[in-house]
Amino acid sequence: MQKVNIQEKLASFSDHWNPRIVGELNGQHVKATKLKGEFIWHHHDHEDELFLVIKGKLKMEFREKTVEVNPGEFIIVPRGVEHRPVADEEVELLLFEPASTLNTGNVENERTRKELEKI
Amino acid sequence: MQKVNIQEKLASFSDHWNPRIVGELNGQHVKATKLKGEFIWHHHDHEDELFLVIKGKLKMEFREKTVEVNPGEFIIVPRGVEHRPVADEEVELLLFEPASTLNTGNVENERTRKELEKI
Repeated sequence: MQKVNIQEKLASFSDHWNPRIVGELNGQHVKATKLKGEFIWHHHDHEDELFLVIKGKLKMEFREKTVEVNPGEFIIVPRGVEHRPVADEEVELLLFEPASTLNTGNVENERTRKELEKI
Repeated sequence: MQKVNIQEKLASFSDHWNPRIVGELNGQHVKATKLKGEFIWHHHDHEDELFLVIKGKLKMEFREKTVEVNPGEFIIVPRGVEHRPVADEEVELLLFEPASTLNTGNVENERTRKELEKI
C-alpha cells in the first residue's frame, strides 16, 4: 500500500489532454491530467465521469449551460450527457471514472487516447 | 449538473466517523467525513477503498506498517486488507468506494453506520 501524492504526479508531465492513470480500484481509474484550450463535444454511453479540480478554473460546457469548477470542487457528468471541457488557462485535475472510459467518449479522432500510461 | 464544493460540504457537519454521501457515479459513492481518534481494525471483503486527505494527517495502520497520508495525498486500501484509520488530530477526507461499502467492513458494532445522509 503506497500513498499517492497528487502534486508529484502532476509535476511529472507537462502535456495537455493526455490523462495518466494514478490509481485503480473497483474497476475504476483515478487519472491525473492537465487541460488547456478547448476539448471536443462528446458523451459517454456507459460511464459517469467525475472531474475534481486541483488547479485553475475548469469550464464544463453543457448544451444548456456552463459550470465553472474551481480548485477544491468537483462535478459529476452523468453518462449520455454531452459535454465539452474548456480551460482558458491551464487546469490540473483528477478524473474518477470506469477503467473502460475513453477520453473522447463516442467520438474517435486525433485527440483520442487509447493507451494510457500508469505513473 | 451541479458542482460540489468540498469545503462547504465538510463545513456542514462536525461529528466524527459518520460519512456523508456527496456524490454518486457508476455504483460508487463519494463521501465526506471527519475523523478523530482511533477507529477499529477491519477489512472489506469485496470493496477497495480510496482515502483522499483534505486536512490533517491520516495514519493508516496496516498489520505490518503505518502509512501517513497528508493533504493532497490519497491511499487505496485493497479489499481483504486489514486496516485501521487513526487521526491524532482531526482529519477531513473524501472516500471513493462502492455504494455497498459499510464503514466498519466485516465488523458490526456501535460504530457501524448503515444509513448515510446525502448532503
